[in-house]
Amino acid sequence: MKEFPEKIAIIGVGLIGGSIALGLKSHFGTKITILGSCDDPSRAQKAVREGIIDIAINNIANLPKDTDLIIIATPIRSTLEIIKRLGSNCPPNCLIIDIGSTKKVILATAQKFLAGEASFIGTHPMAGSEMSGFENASVNLFRNKPWIICPTQKVSNSNLQVVKALISILGANPVIMTAETHDRLTIGASHIFLAISSLLVNAIVKEKDWPEIAQIASTGFRDTTRLASDNPGMKTDIVMTNRTNLLVALGKLKDEITDFTQLIRESDDKAILKYFEDSKRVRDDWISTYFN
Amino acid sequence: MKEFPEKIAIIGVGLIGGSIALGLKSHFGTKITILGSCDDPSRAQKAVREGIIDIAINNIANLPKDTDLIIIATPIRSTLEIIKRLGSNCPPNCLIIDIGSTKKVILATAQKFLAGEASFIGTHPMAGSEMSGFENASVNLFRNKPWIICPTQKVSNSNLQVVKALISILGANPVIMTAETHDRLTIGASHIFLAISSLLVNAIVKEKDWPEIAQIASTGFRDTTRLASDNPGMKTDIVMTNRTNLLVALGKLKDEITDFTQLIRESDDKAILKYFEDSKRVRDDWISTYFN
Repeated sequence: MKEFPEKIAIIGVGLIGGSIALGLKSHFGTKITILGSCDDPSRAQKAVREGIIDIAINNIANLPKDTDLIIIATPIRSTLEIIKRLGSNCPPNCLIIDIGSTKKVILATAQKFLAGEASFIGTHPMAGSEMSGFENASVNLFRNKPWIICPTQKVSNSNLQVVKALISILGANPVIMTAETHDRLTIGASHIFLAISSLLVNAIVKEKDWPEIAQIASTGFRDTTRLASDNPGMKTDIVMTNRTNLLVALGKLKDEITDFTQLIRESDDKAILKYFEDSKRVRDDWISTYFN
Repeated sequence: MKEFPEKIAIIGVGLIGGSIALGLKSHFGTKITILGSCDDPSRAQKAVREGIIDIAINNIANLPKDTDLIIIATPIRSTLEIIKRLGSNCPPNCLIIDIGSTKKVILATAQKFLAGEASFIGTHPMAGSEMSGFENASVNLFRNKPWIICPTQKVSNSNLQVVKALISILGANPVIMTAETHDRLTIGASHIFLAISSLLVNAIVKEKDWPEIAQIASTGFRDTTRLASDNPGMKTDIVMTNRTNLLVALGKLKDEITDFTQLIRESDDKAILKYFEDSKRVRDDWISTYFN
């Protein structure tokens, strides 16, 4: 295996970027140097003061020529812009990875703009929080969580090993698949929930009774709508770069509501009981397989 | 205020009944006696051994004549049966309350069968867990949670004060409304989430890719579908006794999906961003008002 990179730049030191920095620092200590940038340069300075990163940078054109690894940890559409800019400004022999929640558009952009010496691998940690900012970063954010890798055929084995090592160091489990498969599977694993949580809130708040509903809503409302508090820009980028798959899923969800509605119309209590038993069995099995 | 009841029977010592027992014992100690029953008599014996209740009973016809308060803490359709049986077997001057998640059908049944000396007040603690059984009971389950009271016009002020005292002792906040209002408001506060959590699981598990989706699903799936692990019998009872309101809500949810789908079809990213910003603002405000 290629040695692990010693000079690492994190573009976008937020919840994800900050948690990556904390995990690497905790493992490597002073053996590595972490440079970092934020949209707002004063935020990157704050991240240095708080010991999240070593050096603040405010322009990716100024990255040191010996940077070994660039981790782009920004919302998807910023990631696309950064990939384009790196196309003409990338340190030589540098590995670039991203952590965006959709992969097809990002890989297509990388293949177009990073055709030179730089090597690109798309990744997606299946972890997050409705909190944002490096103030909420945690060395445990990725622990035991899946972390998807979408390499292209051009990717060298040594670079792939570096990415796998990075993921393992952060405590996550690497899972390899194509970008197309990723974007289809993440609908049911994640993106449909980003949409439905907001749909539920926006549907309920239209009720004239909303002020009274708000007073008696409790943990069911809190947990089922948790993702409605996620970053709206991040969610918009996901929707816009995974439109076709999401439209299919929303159509299927409407069909499911129609079928379930029919059971209620028919007052078919045995079928309703079975419906709830089925979903409980599936979710309980899933929890005991993947969360225990 | 009437003095607080000293001999209390809890019919159904599960998560809710057990948590009520723990809270009352923690407040009153040996000043009160708590009798309790479970569907399975050996479970009631176990609840005595574990110190949750004082005395196990296995037939509500054998309740002591000086029982002051009966708390029915069973699934809704068992509650309806118990109310019918108490109609001919109720200790005199006894206050009966229930904790069921719908109130119109329960109050109608109580008005029909408990026309004698017994007094009935319907209540609904807005607290729960996907766990069940008194083994998961907690003295903190109701703390700072709303607890709805649906009194009828016949209810005496002294009995209403007893119920308010009970709720306050358990750390919850009493909220008074009619059964009709309760059943309408709890759709948006709770019941729509019981349905949608199972709908999401059952829709996703139909995908041929489910085994792969299961491997990469993470906290978004876990939290949004938490209520799919709730008791299927309890959920079926709620659906069957709040059918009309739930059908209206499911229809509105389908309309909401249609509207949101249209934004995606049009690739209207500004409208999608606003949609997510609106839902985030509403939920964040709700969290900071009611959960901080």
